[in-house]
Amino acid sequence: MTDFEKVTTGMGEECGVFGAYDLKGEDVSSSIYYGLFALQHRGQESCGIAVTNTFGERKFNAVKGLGLVNDVFDEERLSELGGNLGLGHVRYSTAGGSRTENAMPLVINYIKGALAIAHNGNLTNAIELRQDLERTGAIFQTTIDSEVIAYHIARERLNTETADEAVRRAVKKVKGAYALVVTSPRKMIGVRDPFGLKPLCIGKRDDTYFLASESCAIAAVGGEFVRDVEPGELVTISRHGITSNKELQINPENEARCIFEYIYFARTDSKIDGVNVYHSRILAGKTLAESFPVEADLVVGVPDSGLVAAKGYSEATGIPYGMAFHKNSYVGRTFIKPKQSQRESSVKIKLNVIEEVVKDKRIVLVDDSIVRGTTSANIIKMLKKAGAKEVHVRISSPPFLYPCYFGTDVPSNEQLIAHSHTTDEIREMIGADSLGYMEVDKLKNMVGDLGFCDACFTGNYPMEVPGEDISHAFEK
Amino acid sequence: MTDFEKVTTGMGEECGVFGAYDLKGEDVSSSIYYGLFALQHRGQESCGIAVTNTFGERKFNAVKGLGLVNDVFDEERLSELGGNLGLGHVRYSTAGGSRTENAMPLVINYIKGALAIAHNGNLTNAIELRQDLERTGAIFQTTIDSEVIAYHIARERLNTETADEAVRRAVKKVKGAYALVVTSPRKMIGVRDPFGLKPLCIGKRDDTYFLASESCAIAAVGGEFVRDVEPGELVTISRHGITSNKELQINPENEARCIFEYIYFARTDSKIDGVNVYHSRILAGKTLAESFPVEADLVVGVPDSGLVAAKGYSEATGIPYGMAFHKNSYVGRTFIKPKQSQRESSVKIKLNVIEEVVKDKRIVLVDDSIVRGTTSANIIKMLKKAGAKEVHVRISSPPFLYPCYFGTDVPSNEQLIAHSHTTDEIREMIGADSLGYMEVDKLKNMVGDLGFCDACFTGNYPMEVPGEDISHAFEK
Amino acid sequence: MTDFEKVTTGMGEECGVFGAYDLKGEDVSSSIYYGLFALQHRGQESCGIAVTNTFGERKFNAVKGLGLVNDVFDEERLSELGGNLGLGHVRYSTAGGSRTENAMPLVINYIKGALAIAHNGNLTNAIELRQDLERTGAIFQTTIDSEVIAYHIARERLNTETADEAVRRAVKKVKGAYALVVTSPRKMIGVRDPFGLKPLCIGKRDDTYFLASESCAIAAVGGEFVRDVEPGELVTISRHGITSNKELQINPENEARCIFEYIYFARTDSKIDGVNVYHSRILAGKTLAESFPVEADLVVGVPDSGLVAAKGYSEATGIPYGMAFHKNSYVGRTFIKPKQSQRESSVKIKLNVIEEVVKDKRIVLVDDSIVRGTTSANIIKMLKKAGAKEVHVRISSPPFLYPCYFGTDVPSNEQLIAHSHTTDEIREMIGADSLGYMEVDKLKNMVGDLGFCDACFTGNYPMEVPGEDISHAFEK
Amino acid sequence: MTDFEKVTTGMGEECGVFGAYDLKGEDVSSSIYYGLFALQHRGQESCGIAVTNTFGERKFNAVKGLGLVNDVFDEERLSELGGNLGLGHVRYSTAGGSRTENAMPLVINYIKGALAIAHNGNLTNAIELRQDLERTGAIFQTTIDSEVIAYHIARERLNTETADEAVRRAVKKVKGAYALVVTSPRKMIGVRDPFGLKPLCIGKRDDTYFLASESCAIAAVGGEFVRDVEPGELVTISRHGITSNKELQINPENEARCIFEYIYFARTDSKIDGVNVYHSRILAGKTLAESFPVEADLVVGVPDSGLVAAKGYSEATGIPYGMAFHKNSYVGRTFIKPKQSQRESSVKIKLNVIEEVVKDKRIVLVDDSIVRGTTSANIIKMLKKAGAKEVHVRISSPPFLYPCYFGTDVPSNEQLIAHSHTTDEIREMIGADSLGYMEVDKLKNMVGDLGFCDACFTGNYPMEVPGEDISHAFEK
Repeated sequence: MTDFEKVTTGMGEECGVFGAYDLKGEDVSSSIYYGLFALQHRGQESCGIAVTNTFGERKFNAVKGLGLVNDVFDEERLSELGGNLGLGHVRYSTAGGSRTENAMPLVINYIKGALAIAHNGNLTNAIELRQDLERTGAIFQTTIDSEVIAYHIARERLNTETADEAVRRAVKKVKGAYALVVTSPRKMIGVRDPFGLKPLCIGKRDDTYFLASESCAIAAVGGEFVRDVEPGELVTISRHGITSNKELQINPENEARCIFEYIYFARTDSKIDGVNVYHSRILAGKTLAESFPVEADLVVGVPDSGLVAAKGYSEATGIPYGMAFHKNSYVGRTFIKPKQSQRESSVKIKLNVIEEVVKDKRIVLVDDSIVRGTTSANIIKMLKKAGAKEVHVRISSPPFLYPCYFGTDVPSNEQLIAHSHTTDEIREMIGADSLGYMEVDKLKNMVGDLGFCDACFTGNYPMEVPGEDISHAFEK
Repeated sequence: MTDFEKVTTGMGEECGVFGAYDLKGEDVSSSIYYGLFALQHRGQESCGIAVTNTFGERKFNAVKGLGLVNDVFDEERLSELGGNLGLGHVRYSTAGGSRTENAMPLVINYIKGALAIAHNGNLTNAIELRQDLERTGAIFQTTIDSEVIAYHIARERLNTETADEAVRRAVKKVKGAYALVVTSPRKMIGVRDPFGLKPLCIGKRDDTYFLASESCAIAAVGGEFVRDVEPGELVTISRHGITSNKELQINPENEARCIFEYIYFARTDSKIDGVNVYHSRILAGKTLAESFPVEADLVVGVPDSGLVAAKGYSEATGIPYGMAFHKNSYVGRTFIKPKQSQRESSVKIKLNVIEEVVKDKRIVLVDDSIVRGTTSANIIKMLKKAGAKEVHVRISSPPFLYPCYFGTDVPSNEQLIAHSHTTDEIREMIGADSLGYMEVDKLKNMVGDLGFCDACFTGNYPMEVPGEDISHAFEK
Repeated sequence: MTDFEKVTTGMGEECGVFGAYDLKGEDVSSSIYYGLFALQHRGQESCGIAVTNTFGERKFNAVKGLGLVNDVFDEERLSELGGNLGLGHVRYSTAGGSRTENAMPLVINYIKGALAIAHNGNLTNAIELRQDLERTGAIFQTTIDSEVIAYHIARERLNTETADEAVRRAVKKVKGAYALVVTSPRKMIGVRDPFGLKPLCIGKRDDTYFLASESCAIAAVGGEFVRDVEPGELVTISRHGITSNKELQINPENEARCIFEYIYFARTDSKIDGVNVYHSRILAGKTLAESFPVEADLVVGVPDSGLVAAKGYSEATGIPYGMAFHKNSYVGRTFIKPKQSQRESSVKIKLNVIEEVVKDKRIVLVDDSIVRGTTSANIIKMLKKAGAKEVHVRISSPPFLYPCYFGTDVPSNEQLIAHSHTTDEIREMIGADSLGYMEVDKLKNMVGDLGFCDACFTGNYPMEVPGEDISHAFEK
Repeated sequence: MTDFEKVTTGMGEECGVFGAYDLKGEDVSSSIYYGLFALQHRGQESCGIAVTNTFGERKFNAVKGLGLVNDVFDEERLSELGGNLGLGHVRYSTAGGSRTENAMPLVINYIKGALAIAHNGNLTNAIELRQDLERTGAIFQTTIDSEVIAYHIARERLNTETADEAVRRAVKKVKGAYALVVTSPRKMIGVRDPFGLKPLCIGKRDDTYFLASESCAIAAVGGEFVRDVEPGELVTISRHGITSNKELQINPENEARCIFEYIYFARTDSKIDGVNVYHSRILAGKTLAESFPVEADLVVGVPDSGLVAAKGYSEATGIPYGMAFHKNSYVGRTFIKPKQSQRESSVKIKLNVIEEVVKDKRIVLVDDSIVRGTTSANIIKMLKKAGAKEVHVRISSPPFLYPCYFGTDVPSNEQLIAHSHTTDEIREMIGADSLGYMEVDKLKNMVGDLGFCDACFTGNYPMEVPGEDISHAFEK
């Protein structure tokens, strides 16, 4: 998804969450920092950490800011935080600009003291819930769903014995996708929506428990992966260990993990609900090989997201796998984009073809998606200029056709080349010799028995979604 | 008050507010910026501006940050704000460090859309009100009183026709000192507490109305002073002009303006409730001359806060007024303070005596207050070293003895030299040849008929205050 | 000189220098920092400090940067410097923008190790000297005169026994105005040009010697003023104390101190060559009173540069001295300037009239100069609007008519209202009721017997200057 | 070379240079910016760009600073530069801290106007040359070799007709390694030392000529690779096109390209002197396969520097190539390093093993070098923990045993595990099942007929080097 221009369809956003609780009282701030580092790919707009000391006052110290984890935190800020229970968040921006007040975690004071909250996902009834709250006099200072959830927790807390009970009751009211971490002054609570749309897992290192969006973050801090939080499960971590409540669980058949986590979003070294992301991408490549075989000399992937599927394609076909590109690892977010008028192009600055590898070869080029098509066209042009005789493009996801209401950032229709063109038209536009998209009914190859959501390709949403009659959404 | 170390007695703080509304739709952001500049002396910790366009969407753009107006705003940020109705705030920090989330104005979304709010003052029942709200499930994201007021406005708004009516009902619930500016998407509302503890006034420039903590800010933006908002008055400025509600007004005899605004806090070029601050300081100097005459050759003031009272002392006695000091105008907030061990001192770096002016002279040195006494001692030592034969100190306020609960930053008892020493002991400690403090019963000279609050000197609070039995507060 | 737009006539610039040498080996970095603070008014564009340890290696640590002393240095940077011999510099920018490489001090390595150099002033033969050096293969990395001087010192050092001897020989080659401080690994050397155009003085505090552009800087670091370096004198400070070489001295009658140091540039609490700056400004005011008496009720000065002369005018005439203005002390360099189209004006934002002081009064307004006239016009308008009945303007310098080649920043002709208008025309343009400029032949009143340079008023340069035939320079 | 701590042996440093000259007058600043981006791997400490307009004044605008290209340049700074001839530089820091004054390009003024210079490499007679210059009165403001070269150019220019002639004469005096770009107001000159130790090549895009350290930079700006500058060649690019002078060339057999450019330093997509870097690394892997075959299930490379050699090893042996690691692409320079006491490690934060790939496999792990051995040990531990049955390490360079005097950053002896341990000891220390280093006499396999320098492995320096008798350098 090399040329994604970040545009969202709603209030939602992709994000990463990471919680840590050291029962013996040692500082977890730096573990949270490194955990967020490992989740940085899930959100680059803003980040934050909030921590408390469970042996001290019932309050949280928080640092939040716009930018990468490395931009917001330095040694001084991190050491000032200090606490043995806390959570962090990386946020993926939406249209409408960067808003500091929307950075998470959200720290609130309420009847029972303080509470910090961070979530990944998008509520489908957030607007409704906000309006309900406003009708009772509530005020909102952000536009993030966490504030709505926090309000409900605070209200439920008036009539409940424990924080986890209040969280449990609160999440019953919300609909949509969420992986939620809440830290009360003495507990760390994790919840995953009943469909399991967003991932969340548990780790442990000596006396420290972790909750993380992806298992790679647990590895990064030297922890052991314990297990996934199950769809619909609420786990409470306290000095009594882990307790679990599965009241919200639904029939596993109806579970609907976001398939895009496997295709593109998650890190290749993560494992979600028992399925290795690496493995699922190898299988995607193999599936493409089966659906769209071709005579060729070399299989190459577009760095970094197409590499593993390319490996799979190579393994299935026996066509050698090659490294056709050098990716400039210094091109970051603040990179000055070339103007249309300049001879340099963003693609060339990011990627360069290694001529020797592709010269006189028939190439299979694997990528995870095509958005506008301009990047693909540029890459193919570069390959051909370097002497590639043929370029056969294989895409490890079906074309996006429907909006995502659950927080995955799918470009809007106008930007999607697939929305207004046939596959053959696209093939011609990007200059490929052949083009094959993952077939929708083959997606299940990637994740085995796991229930997953493919609504962005099919329009089959796992739950009711807001907005107009979806079936006609793109028909005009 | 040269050596004030900023420490507060409660949640309150000194602040400045500035609102602007251009009825024809022209941008008021830069006027708010310049208005805040003129009020910068009222708060240097953080500042912010929030604006809306009354002809556009019902939302506010806000920029807030730690630091001076000049640190937080640059041309780009200011021009991005854009709006014809808005308000700004400068905040004076409290103990507990700098907290971005406490920067004002507070912008909230509630049942009727958006609302921005900024206030100067300190509520005496804020904790009580917060707890009441929390008992109904409210959540708080800051520790500022504005959030409490905003909640009440939001709740009252459920059952009122207009925003100003909701504000009116909300302020009925709060106790303490406040000058409040609220901007709803179509109105600018100003309120002053019934005692008039904090100042607020109205200005106008063509089609633009202003609300400001001090009249100097109206002059700075080229506006005409219209009038003060009266104690207990609520004014609503809309496209229908100014309307007024005086329901909260009390007997003028009970009004209790903070006398410290006249002594020190307000700018000399401001006028509050009909009394020129300059004039009141001249009168303070004259009163000191009457109470504590002395044979001397020259009257000098400690820059900048003692200069006008020194002029008054000079006028009353006929002793010439002189400029004894050069004040370094580049020494700002971020100035590296000399360590105890260094030969340089903060006083010497800030002030230098002009030897020629003071040599062989008997000096009357006028200042507004003595806190720890170290600065006064240093200044007197510098004067004597430069050849002054005698130094007679005159202080234009009585000694602080009681805490302020209304948001004026009075140092804590331990820091106050006056708290544990007699006037003669202090005189000796600072090395003065004589010392006279403004007498409490002469304070009224400064402001004529106006009711004022002198509780920090007398303990006579105009309303019930929280905490222990005040009469014994300092008795140990 | 309130409305000076900073434009220079040559390569020169006003600057401040400060050197410190602790013979016992204690760190002088912070003393240099505070010394520069006291000299900040002499240059706000860039600053720097270079220090060495005379008991350690023969090298210098330096920190330089654009901005005020407070912008460039923080506690960390200062503490890293560490050294017992060093010098600092504040630089006043020239046309052509801010250039980091031109920040001083200049630190060089040469045949004898390292050397740091800083100067105030402008060489009149700098271009000639550069060209001579270039003709022998020299390369230049800056455009400051110090580099030229440094080259000559390095060359002379090849054939001299000591660093001070090399400096002495080098300055023999340069012409123009200079106050120079050079620190070699074991010595601190100060030189003043034969005419004494730029000031330099010696201070002492225990085992620490200081060299400073103005005596106020010595006071700021708690030192004692020892004496001025004499025009044409070279002083060498080493562990053997102070030695002096006066080889370059000329007939005292021909000495030519920059009169503008006394009128405007130096701080009022400094003393230069035995004359208090404060005193000379009092005398300027008295001289104006004698030359241009007027019936009036109040004498006021334009803050800050006109205040002392106003005091002098008041003393001479018996007309009371008053404080008519509040000056906003937060308006700094980075202040966003109002656009022409805005109703706010820079003058209003910086200054406000205290109405009560001037209402119904006939005012004498004293300032140090008039450049474009717009600021004066604005101030007079503000005074009249506040009720002043008459405003009589008195200027404590004659009109500028000739360029300064010695480093004082005189605006260019096109900007100078005096260049193309008669005094009466100017009076009318600024809206004054009368206008009097200091008469050229009365300037001597300010400095007694001291020889001074008044070339910017008269064209009588103390030495040959570059450029066209000066006598006709402004005749067209 | 994953765990290189950057320590140098001399004054030298690795660097990248990029020059651009648009003969038609179009701006080349952004091309230089993108060119430097492509060369960022050659130096991350500081960077700079200097440009001139060949149709305008004979002066250069320059921007330099500490940090990455992206840190130092933003759109505003870049657009201010403006010019059609210029050069840029990225610098790799040396011990002794970051020094702004050492940032390149160096811009000087001399007898013929201005000149900008940037170089990659290290002169072996720099100290000698500096001393010679100092003996004639020269001053130095930096510690970079460019300043020495610039001086010589300036001196030679006194007696030469053209800038290129002066450069030619100047480089005759310098010894050591250099790839030099000099821009005079109308010419761009490139020179490579006679041994060809450092690379430099020529590119072209329409009317724009480029000089670059590596061909990848020419590709990044959309240019065509023209040819390498030959060892000992001086090329002059002017409006008359390219002219060449080969006076300095030596017998090709004696040429001594730095072999480490091929092993590690250059980008895989570059081609140096006709040899593709990618290809040479593939050959390195194949050579290792030949020298140290092993029965295994998978070949993996340490990202990024070991990947291509791993591919070569796989191709030669038929053992499948796999991706065993996920590398966190957000871990940059400013990353907070874990403390010894923390459970997180830098390696884990940067790299994570993809368990599925390595589980139950016998692994061949290829890297380019082993420095301290700690990183290798950590990686092997991670692999084994993830289930690898065996880990056979293959290193694509021989052990470093001798210092480099030509500017390649070889760690000092104390840091080098190979210096004090046998291969078998190292194998045991890092926990490998077998370990094979590239054999010195097989290095020629990588580059065919090209003459290369392998002194860091053998001590056979291509020219006389400074310091003690090298043959005994490491014997103690």
